[in-house]
Order: sequence, then C-alpha cells, then structure tokens
Amino acid sequence: MGSRGGAADPDGLDLRRVLAEQGRFAAALTSEEALRTLDYDVAVEMTPLDIPGRGAAAISHVRAALERGKHVITCNKGPIAWAWRPLRDLARERGVSFLYETTVMDGAPVFNLAQRCLQGNTVLKIEGILNSTTNYVLSEMEKGASLAEAVKGAQRLGIAEADPADDLEGWDAAVKVSALANVLLDADLPPEAVERESLSAITPERVREALDRGCRLKVVCEAFGAGGNVIGRVRVREIPLTDPFALVVGTGSILRFTTDILGKIVLTEEDPDLSTTAYGVISDLFRLRGF
Amino acid sequence: MGSRGGAADPDGLDLRRVLAEQGRFAAALTSEEALRTLDYDVAVEMTPLDIPGRGAAAISHVRAALERGKHVITCNKGPIAWAWRPLRDLARERGVSFLYETTVMDGAPVFNLAQRCLQGNTVLKIEGILNSTTNYVLSEMEKGASLAEAVKGAQRLGIAEADPADDLEGWDAAVKVSALANVLLDADLPPEAVERESLSAITPERVREALDRGCRLKVVCEAFGAGGNVIGRVRVREIPLTDPFALVVGTGSILRFTTDILGKIVLTEEDPDLSTTAYGVISDLFRLRGF
Repeated sequence: MGSRGGAADPDGLDLRRVLAEQGRFAAALTSEEALRTLDYDVAVEMTPLDIPGRGAAAISHVRAALERGKHVITCNKGPIAWAWRPLRDLARERGVSFLYETTVMDGAPVFNLAQRCLQGNTVLKIEGILNSTTNYVLSEMEKGASLAEAVKGAQRLGIAEADPADDLEGWDAAVKVSALANVLLDADLPPEAVERESLSAITPERVREALDRGCRLKVVCEAFGAGGNVIGRVRVREIPLTDPFALVVGTGSILRFTTDILGKIVLTEEDPDLSTTAYGVISDLFRLRGF
Repeated sequence: MGSRGGAADPDGLDLRRVLAEQGRFAAALTSEEALRTLDYDVAVEMTPLDIPGRGAAAISHVRAALERGKHVITCNKGPIAWAWRPLRDLARERGVSFLYETTVMDGAPVFNLAQRCLQGNTVLKIEGILNSTTNYVLSEMEKGASLAEAVKGAQRLGIAEADPADDLEGWDAAVKVSALANVLLDADLPPEAVERESLSAITPERVREALDRGCRLKVVCEAFGAGGNVIGRVRVREIPLTDPFALVVGTGSILRFTTDILGKIVLTEEDPDLSTTAYGVISDLFRLRGF
C-alpha cells in the first residue's frame, strides 16, 4: 500500500485494517511474488509508465499473471506498446482475457468500440489528440504565454508531471500511438519507431501565425498502414477551425478511426475527470464477465 | 421484389432467377404471410418509415417474427419509436434478439456503443444532429439561399424526399428522438410527444444574425430525464462555433451522450455513404452471432 509495496490476504483484504497497518503490509510480498503465488481471478496492473525501462516491470507483471492462466487488465500502456504480440499470444494460449481500455483516452471506449462495435471493418488509420499537457500548453501560447509559462500553468493544474519532458518531447503520445497501432492496425511498432516532433521548438509567434491562417496548432497522433508497414507519428499540425480536432481543449481528447466500410467515425471525450479513468477498469471487468 | 412484394424459396433464392422473374414472384406471399409461415433465422425489416400510420405495418412485421421466436433486425425506426416496450418484452419472453442499429446515424454504432461500451453508466441526456436535409438547408441559407432554393438543392442531391415536409417539420428527427429516448433513457415517448420546431419560420436573415454572433443555427435533437419523465425536443438552436455540433455539415451526424460516470462522450460520423447504412445491418448480424 502507500505508493509502493503490496498487501495480500488469501481470505480477502479488510480495508480498514489495511489502511491502519500500511507499514506492516508494505514489504510482505513483492508484486511479482504476489502475482505468482496468491489466489486471484484477475490481475489489474496499475503501475506508472516507465519509458526508459521500456515498460519492463509492467510487462513482467502481466506475463506472470497470464502464464498462470489469470485474466489481466492493464492501465499501464507499456505492455501493449512494447510487448503486444507475445502477451496477446500468451493470453490466447492460456484462454484468458488481456484488456487495456484505460491506456488511451482514459475510460472512453476506444478499444471496446473498435473490437465490439466495428467488427468486419478494417481500421486503415487512426488520428488523435491524446496528450493533455501539450494541448493545454498550446492553448495558453495562443493567449500569449511563453512555452515555459504555459508548462508552469499545466503543472499548477496538476496536468503535467514535475518533469514535463515526456509530454513535451512527444514520448507519452508516442507510447499511445504504439498501443493503438499494435492493437488496431496489427502493427509491431515500439514507441522508439514512432516519429516524434518536440514542442520545444514551437514559439508563441508560430502559434499566432497559424491562428492568422484560421488554424490552431495541435499535437496530433497518427498511425496508418497495416502489419509490418505501419507508420506512426506524433506531429505538431496546423488544424483548420472547421475540423473538430481544433476544438479539443483542456483535458479533452479525440480520436478519428478511418475504416474501409464505415468510413470515418470520431470519438470525443469532453471534460474527463478521475472517475472517467476509473471507469476504464470497470468496463474491462464488465467485459471479462461477458457483458 | 421490385419496390413491393416478396420472393421466397425454402431452398434459398437463386438471385439471377429472382431478378429475371420479378413479376412472377411479386404476389406469391405477403410479407406478413412470409414472416408467419416460412423457415428463417432472422427477419430484417427494411420497409420505409410510415409516420401517419405510426409505423403500424413495420410493427406488425416485427411482432410476427418475434412471436414465432425469430430474431429481428429493424432498419425502420417505427417499431422502436411507437412500440418499444411491448416488442422488447416480447423478444425477452421468447429469448430472441431484437436489434435496430441502423435506425439512428446510419450504421454508426449508437446503440451498440451505449449497450456494449457504456455498461454501468446511466445515460442522462442525449443531444444530436441527426437529420441531413435540415442540416444541408441551413448550410445553404448561410450562403444566402432562400428556404425553397435550399430544399430544391437537397432534392437534387437526393438527400431530401420529393415531399420534404417530414424533414422540415421535424418529424423524422422526432421519430429518432423517440427511438433514442425509449431505448437509452427507458422512456415510453411516442414521436407525437416530442416537442418540434419547424424550419419553415426560419429566414436567411435569422441564419445570418446567428453567424454575426459567432453561432450557427442547427436542428438539434434532445432527450433527457428517465422513465416516465423524459422530455424530448427537436429545436432550432444557435450553436457557438467552438462546439463540435457547429461543424457537422453535409450528411454527417453527431450524438453526445451525457452519462453519470463517464461524463460526456461524443460520437461523430463524417461523410457517410450507402455502405455505412448497410453496415448497420451487418453489425446487428455480427451481434446476433455473439461477436
């Protein structure tokens, strides 16, 4: 419990006791040991994304549970960005579910929509605005703030991390592009292979020049192609004000699926909050139960 | 075959023969007789919407099939607008599926999204732009056309019917509001109980005044509340250009679901064509097969 460590009781956890005795539980078992030895129905992987480590710890948690024939829900993008194919195959082999709705667009039904509502369609392309920090920063720069001032604002609002580099350099977005491309375009595309454009070269003047042309600068995630030929990109693009992508503000996000039969379907999440993210896990639990 | 009549063969239809001998097949069986006597797995109801008749013929087709324990897919909005509760209950009683994805937003996953991807959420409100004719007419009036000229343009493009009254008076939209309210808000709301605003009182000046205020006039479908207290409306509203509803043009459509947990989720369909509508039926067939 706390921000690290684990708590386990074969008869189920008494939450009041857990909260009262955090310290005593903390070092009882490592996550890996818990996953490999305890009795459970589904493992929910909620560790934070580790980009330099290429998601290794989370991947190892997911693998430990799948190998034992346990269902897995991951909120960590790492496993599907860096190890999608082996983990998917392992889950199939063991006849269990491997779900990951929360990894992109909080709890909005991205993968559920594609897998349960677009059957028979081939997804040809995905485009999205999926990173709140850069979207907030660009909005503030439209109002005249410098990059540094806008980043500080994002930190004050709790959108950006203390070290905002993963957002500004496009890494968080690149990991999301990998996750989407691997699952929806049958790609095998690690985040390192996704072309990234940094926001650090963007000046307030550049932002205002776009506005003068009736456009907004937005960090757009893209992936298109299929299988071994998927291109993934995180680009700073000029979006005309007549495109719904230009209207995404704050912590909102948007994703356009271009498909061969149904054409273009756009999913937008407006003003999400923490319950939205939590719902992603709940919806995966529903799906496990066959709903 | 042709635009009326039926063709049936217990061993399956030879399409070349059907097309060559349309006349001979035409009067062989009424739809009702076919539904009540032939062997089939699923009835797909594709008759056109009959507003003055309150969908009676389509309702009777759906009932005939459900009573025999056959699955039903309807592309006709009438049955879920005027007879949702009895038909839903009959399908449950007989243990068969009753599906209707094509009735709103062509083949875009409206009901599939709500029923398969938003489980556990209560839908509190739905808002949409769901009628192409009125949307096209308002766009043309922005460019200076009169209502009559804009309607003629819509007819030339094949969007509007020869008698466009059902669109302009808000009837088509009201039937869609009923369908959505009944299924998603547990309402028992017939189209006659949906408040409608006619487009005939809207002048090009009124459209341009809205533009001067940074807004577009749009025909917006709304329903909110629950059970016996659902309000349904079709209104001409001023939508600010910062709202994605203002960007829906041509035959595109948009639907915002406001839910208690996931907040606001918006689904947009861009540039649909005939295959989009056809896909709605295919997706219902997939769902019947448990996909």
